[in-house]
Amino acid sequence: MPGMNLAKKLIESHLVKGTMAPNGVIELKIDQVLSEDATGTLVMLELEALGARQVKAEVCVQYVDHNVLRTDHRNGDDHMFLESACRKYGIWYSRPGNGISHPVHMSCFGVPGKTMLGADSHTCAAGSMSMLAIGAGGIEVALAMMGFPLSLLMPTILGVRLEGELQPWVSAKDVILELLRRYTLNGCWNKIVEYHGPGLDKLTAMDRHVIANMGQEMGAVSSVFPSDIQVRLFLRQQGREEDFTELAADGDATYDEETTIDLSKIEPMMACPSRPDKVVRVQEVEGRPVFQSYIGSSANPGLRDFSVPARMIDGLFIPHTVSLDINPSSRQLLQELTRSGDLGKLLAAGAYLHETGCGGCIGMGQAPASGHNSLRTVPRNFSGRSGTKEDQVYLCSPETATASALNGKITDPRRLDMDYPVFNEPEHLLDMRTLIQPPQEIPVKVDLRKGPNIKPLPVLNIMLSVIAGPILLKLEDNISTDDIIPGGAEALPYWSNVPELSRYTFHRIDDSFHQRALSTKEDIFLIAGDNFGHGSSREHAALTLRFLGVRCVIAKSVSLLHRKSLIDHGILILTFDNPEDFDGFSQGDMLQFYDLSSCTGEHHILELRDITRGKKVWLKNDLSAKEVEIIKFGGRINYIKGILGASLQKVDVF
Amino acid sequence: MPGMNLAKKLIESHLVKGTMAPNGVIELKIDQVLSEDATGTLVMLELEALGARQVKAEVCVQYVDHNVLRTDHRNGDDHMFLESACRKYGIWYSRPGNGISHPVHMSCFGVPGKTMLGADSHTCAAGSMSMLAIGAGGIEVALAMMGFPLSLLMPTILGVRLEGELQPWVSAKDVILELLRRYTLNGCWNKIVEYHGPGLDKLTAMDRHVIANMGQEMGAVSSVFPSDIQVRLFLRQQGREEDFTELAADGDATYDEETTIDLSKIEPMMACPSRPDKVVRVQEVEGRPVFQSYIGSSANPGLRDFSVPARMIDGLFIPHTVSLDINPSSRQLLQELTRSGDLGKLLAAGAYLHETGCGGCIGMGQAPASGHNSLRTVPRNFSGRSGTKEDQVYLCSPETATASALNGKITDPRRLDMDYPVFNEPEHLLDMRTLIQPPQEIPVKVDLRKGPNIKPLPVLNIMLSVIAGPILLKLEDNISTDDIIPGGAEALPYWSNVPELSRYTFHRIDDSFHQRALSTKEDIFLIAGDNFGHGSSREHAALTLRFLGVRCVIAKSVSLLHRKSLIDHGILILTFDNPEDFDGFSQGDMLQFYDLSSCTGEHHILELRDITRGKKVWLKNDLSAKEVEIIKFGGRINYIKGILGASLQKVDVF
Repeated sequence: MPGMNLAKKLIESHLVKGTMAPNGVIELKIDQVLSEDATGTLVMLELEALGARQVKAEVCVQYVDHNVLRTDHRNGDDHMFLESACRKYGIWYSRPGNGISHPVHMSCFGVPGKTMLGADSHTCAAGSMSMLAIGAGGIEVALAMMGFPLSLLMPTILGVRLEGELQPWVSAKDVILELLRRYTLNGCWNKIVEYHGPGLDKLTAMDRHVIANMGQEMGAVSSVFPSDIQVRLFLRQQGREEDFTELAADGDATYDEETTIDLSKIEPMMACPSRPDKVVRVQEVEGRPVFQSYIGSSANPGLRDFSVPARMIDGLFIPHTVSLDINPSSRQLLQELTRSGDLGKLLAAGAYLHETGCGGCIGMGQAPASGHNSLRTVPRNFSGRSGTKEDQVYLCSPETATASALNGKITDPRRLDMDYPVFNEPEHLLDMRTLIQPPQEIPVKVDLRKGPNIKPLPVLNIMLSVIAGPILLKLEDNISTDDIIPGGAEALPYWSNVPELSRYTFHRIDDSFHQRALSTKEDIFLIAGDNFGHGSSREHAALTLRFLGVRCVIAKSVSLLHRKSLIDHGILILTFDNPEDFDGFSQGDMLQFYDLSSCTGEHHILELRDITRGKKVWLKNDLSAKEVEIIKFGGRINYIKGILGASLQKVDVF
Repeated sequence: MPGMNLAKKLIESHLVKGTMAPNGVIELKIDQVLSEDATGTLVMLELEALGARQVKAEVCVQYVDHNVLRTDHRNGDDHMFLESACRKYGIWYSRPGNGISHPVHMSCFGVPGKTMLGADSHTCAAGSMSMLAIGAGGIEVALAMMGFPLSLLMPTILGVRLEGELQPWVSAKDVILELLRRYTLNGCWNKIVEYHGPGLDKLTAMDRHVIANMGQEMGAVSSVFPSDIQVRLFLRQQGREEDFTELAADGDATYDEETTIDLSKIEPMMACPSRPDKVVRVQEVEGRPVFQSYIGSSANPGLRDFSVPARMIDGLFIPHTVSLDINPSSRQLLQELTRSGDLGKLLAAGAYLHETGCGGCIGMGQAPASGHNSLRTVPRNFSGRSGTKEDQVYLCSPETATASALNGKITDPRRLDMDYPVFNEPEHLLDMRTLIQPPQEIPVKVDLRKGPNIKPLPVLNIMLSVIAGPILLKLEDNISTDDIIPGGAEALPYWSNVPELSRYTFHRIDDSFHQRALSTKEDIFLIAGDNFGHGSSREHAALTLRFLGVRCVIAKSVSLLHRKSLIDHGILILTFDNPEDFDGFSQGDMLQFYDLSSCTGEHHILELRDITRGKKVWLKNDLSAKEVEIIKFGGRINYIKGILGASLQKVDVF
C-alpha cells in the first residue's frame, strides 16, 4: 500500500462517516470555527434560530474585519450585536482593529493537524500551517460551532511539488499567480491542493499563507502544507511553540493528480483586469500608468509583505499622483512595523496608512479613480469589487506593487536599481490573544443586543411539488457571488438586514432585477453558465435570491461553496444534461416542473418544460436525498427544526 | 492714545481700504490661502469659471483631508482633478495622507503676522501663531487666490486675559469649552477673540491651536494669540525658526470687550449632545456608559493630544465593548508617534488606529452605534454629524476621552489612580513640506482632469425685480450648514457635483424638501430663526439652495460666513425688523416682493407681502449696495464676469 498524502491524513484523522473513496460523501469532525462580521451576523442569527446554547467546537472565534468603516450606525450596531452573541454562545470575540480573521487566527489559534470551518472563503489559508481549513456558508458554520460534523464530497488531491528557490524580487504571490495561470478559475473544483517537495524549505508560514489563501481562486476546497520547521518558527514567534506538531505526507505518498513548479523559474506575475486567472508576466504589461498601489489583505498579510516595500522606498518619494495605500492585516503586524521603524519609512516616502482590516480588498474604501489602474496585493479583481464600477485592478506581489508605485507605471521590480531588501522574521511578536475577548468560563444569561440594523432571518416556506414561473435572468459563465450580492461600502453594511440587502441583488448586472423579482408572483428561475457562484462564501448570495422568490437555478456548473448555500436556503439547483441546451433558453421564458414529489435525489434526470417554447429539456439532478429533503423543507433551518425538532443534538444533520 | 491690541495691528498692517471704525467695511490684503478637498473642488471650478491664470497670493495650498474614504470612484476623481488644477493654477497640492489642512498648514507654511483666508471654517486655528486667519466660502477663496483683497465688517475685539496655570488633567480643550459655556454658539458674532496675559506662558502653539480652532464655534471671525517663545519653539521644531517674528499687543492695549479666565480654576469640561455650547463639568455627567472615545480632528491635533492618551493607557487594556479610535491629524504626527513608541502603546492597549485626516469628525467613518454615547475631542457635535442619525456625541479633552474609555463610562480624568503623564515636545519633527507638491516654477499648460464626478458649476440666472412664491420650509433657531447640506460619507463625495448633492438639501430636517423644491416653479422662500447657517463654511449650503430655486431667506439672524455665501450665490438675505413677525408665517404661505428695483442696499427697510394672509411685514435690509448688485446679477461669478469683464484684475471686486 503506497504512503498517504497529508490531505488524506488530515481527513482520516477527522473522519466521522463515509470512506475516502472518490466522490463519496464523507463527514468530518470540525475542531475550530471562525466567522467574520459580514457573514457572522447571519451565523449568530442562525444560532439563535436553531435554539443554540453554548457552542461545542474546541475553538470558535468571531472576528470583526469587514464592516469597519462605520459610515453610519449600522456597522456599530453589528459589532455590538456580535459581541453580545459571543458572550451568549461562548465564542471568542475579536473587536475591530485586531485585524483580518485569517492571519489573526493563524497567529492566535492555529494548530497543525486541526480541522477548521470558516464563514469566509479564504479560511483555507490556514492550510499554510497544516490545518484542513474550509470556507462555508453561515448555516454550515453555525452547525459546526454547535458540534455537528461537516459533510462534503471526498475531494481529489492535487499534489504540487515545489522545487528550487525563488529568485530575488519574486515571492509567494508570484507562485500562486502562476498556478492560477495554469488552472484558471475553476480548475481545482473539489480538489485539495497539497504542496510538498524541497522548494518548501525557504517558504515561511506566511509565504505559504499567501499561496493557500488564493487556492480558493482556483475553486479548490482547500490547500495544505506540511507542518515543519517553518511552522515551528512561526509558532515560536507567537509564543505558542508548544502547539507545534510535525506533520507531512509519507515519503512515498501519491496524489490523484500531480504537477511541479520550479520556483527558480518563476518570474514576477500579474493578473490583469478583471479576473484572477488573467495572468501574465509583469514584463508583458510594463509601462501602463499607475494611479494606485495597494498593499494588504488576507492574500499578502505577512510582515515581509509590508517590510519589503518599506525598505524598497526607504529614503525615496512616491510621486504625488500615485496613491500608495498601506492596509495592515493585523494589530500585531502594525505594532511590529512601528517597532521596527518600517512604518516610519513608509510614511516618510508618502505612503498612506489605513486602518487595519480587509479595507479596499472588499471595496470598503480606497476605490480608484474612474478607469485608472490600481495594482493590488489582494486575492481578487472582479470588476467593480474595488468600489469603482469600471475599475482596472491588477493583482501582483508587494514587490511589483511597490516598484510600480515608485515609477508611476507598471514595473517589473527586477528592473529597479537597488538590492533586494533583506528581511528576517523577528523572534517574537505582540501577543494578540490577550486582546481577544474569551468566552465566559461560567456562562451567564446574555441578551442579544440588536440595534436597528439587525433584522430577523426571513422565514422561508416549503417547496410545493409543482413550481412554475419565468426565467427572470439569464446569466453568463463565471458569475461570482460578488455579482449576485456585492460587498463594498454601499451594500456590506446591510448584510445583517436581508430585506434591505436584497435591493442590491444582481445590482451590477441588472439593476432592475430587484423590482422585477418583487413584482413576480410566480416562482422565479435563473439560468446560468459555468462556475456559477464562485468567489466569496457569502450565503447572502443565496438567501437574498430566495427572499426575492428564486426557487430554481439551472446552470452549466456551480461552485461547490455556492451550491451548498443555495441548498441551505431551499433553492433547487440543477445542471444541464446537455450544456448546449443553455442556448435554447431566453430571459422571460415560462418554465415548469410538474411533479417534484418524484424528485428524490441520487443522481437522476428531471424533465423541465419550457411552456413558452413548448419543449422539454433534461436536467441533471446530482443532489443527495437529504439535500432534496432540505430544499423541500424550504431550507436547512426549516429542515433541522422540522425533522429533528428537540432531538437536535443527537442526530445526524446533513 | 492707548496702545493697540494685536488683532488691530494685524488688520492695520493689511488694510487696503476703509478705516478700523466699528462696523465699517474694510478690505484686507490676503497673504495665504488654503482650501480642503470638500470645498476645494468648487474653488477650482470657480477659478476656471473666472478665467484665472496663475494665482497671485504668496502661498496657496490645496489639502486633501475630507474625502479620503474613497468608497467609490468619486473621491479619487476629485483628487485627480484637484492635483491637475493645482498644477494649472500654481497651487501647492497636499495629497491624501498628509493630514488635516489646519495643523499641516501651521507646520509647513504658517508665518506669524500673515493674513490667511481658507475655504474651511476652522482656518481660524492659525491664529494660534499670530496669523489673522479667516474661514470663507469658495468664491471668496478663489478671489483671494487671484490676489483680490477680502472685504469684511470691522470686527469688535474681545480680549481674553489668561491668568494662572492649568492643573494636571486639565488641558486647552477645557479652556475653550469653558468659553463656549460663557459665550454660547453665537456669542462672538463678528468678534475677533484675542488672548493675552501671563497664562499664555505654558500654553504651547498647539495648545493655542485647540483654543483658536473652536473660537469658530462661538461665531467668532477669528482668534489671535501673540507670537512669542512658544511660537518660536514650534517653528524651530518644524525647521523653520527663520520664519519667526515676535508679535504682541502693546502693553497698554485696550479691547472693545474684555473677560478673564483663571486657568488654575478650570476643571475638565464636556459639551453634551448635541451642541458645542451645552457645556457642563465632567463631574456632572460621570458614570454614563461609553461606547466610543474618539481622539483626533483639527480641534485636538497636537502631538500631546495623542501622546498623553498613549501614556495613560500604557500597559492597560481598553474594555472590549469600547472603541478607542485614534485619528492622526498629520503624517508628521503619526511618524512621531511611531518613533516615540506611543503608537505601540495605543495598539497594545486595544486602540484602533485610523487613517490620517478629518475622519469621523465630519462623519467619514467611525459612526457610533445607534443611541450610544460617543466621547470625542472634535470641535462639533451637531446631531447626526457623526453619521449616526440619533447620535449622542460629547465633546471633551483627550484626557477625559481616554479616562472614560478605560473605565467604560464617563470619567473625570482626575479620578484615575495614576500620575498625569509627562509630555515634552520633541525638538524636531519630520519635514512634511517635501511631501507637498510645489507649484511649477515655469507654468506649463495643464488640462484639468475631470472624472465623471466633476460636474460643471450651475449657471445661475439674474434676479427679476418681482419675486414671488411659497415659504417652502420654516426653520427653527441655530440651523447649521450641516443641517442644510450634510457632510458625512453619503453626501460628501458629491460636493463636486451640485445636481446630485442638491438631493441631500435639508435631508436631516425634511427629506421631502428636494422633491418639493424641484416641483415648485415659483421663487422659493425660506424662513429661519436665529443664527441661520452657523458651523462649517460650506458654500454648498448656499449653492444647492440656489440650484433648487431658493431666492430669498428671511431670518431672525444669520451667521456671518453663511450670509456671505448666500449673497455670493445670488440669494436675497433679509432679517425681520420685528423678530416677533417670525411667528406670523407658516410653511406654504405665498410671499411677494413687488419691486426690488428700488432695493439698493445701505440699510433700508423692505416691504414683504404675505399673499396668503393678506398682510405686510417689514424686513431689514443690511446689504451693501454692492451686495445687492451681486444678488441681482444672480451671484458673484455673474457679477464679476458681467460688470467687470476683461478688466478683472484692475478693479475693486467686492
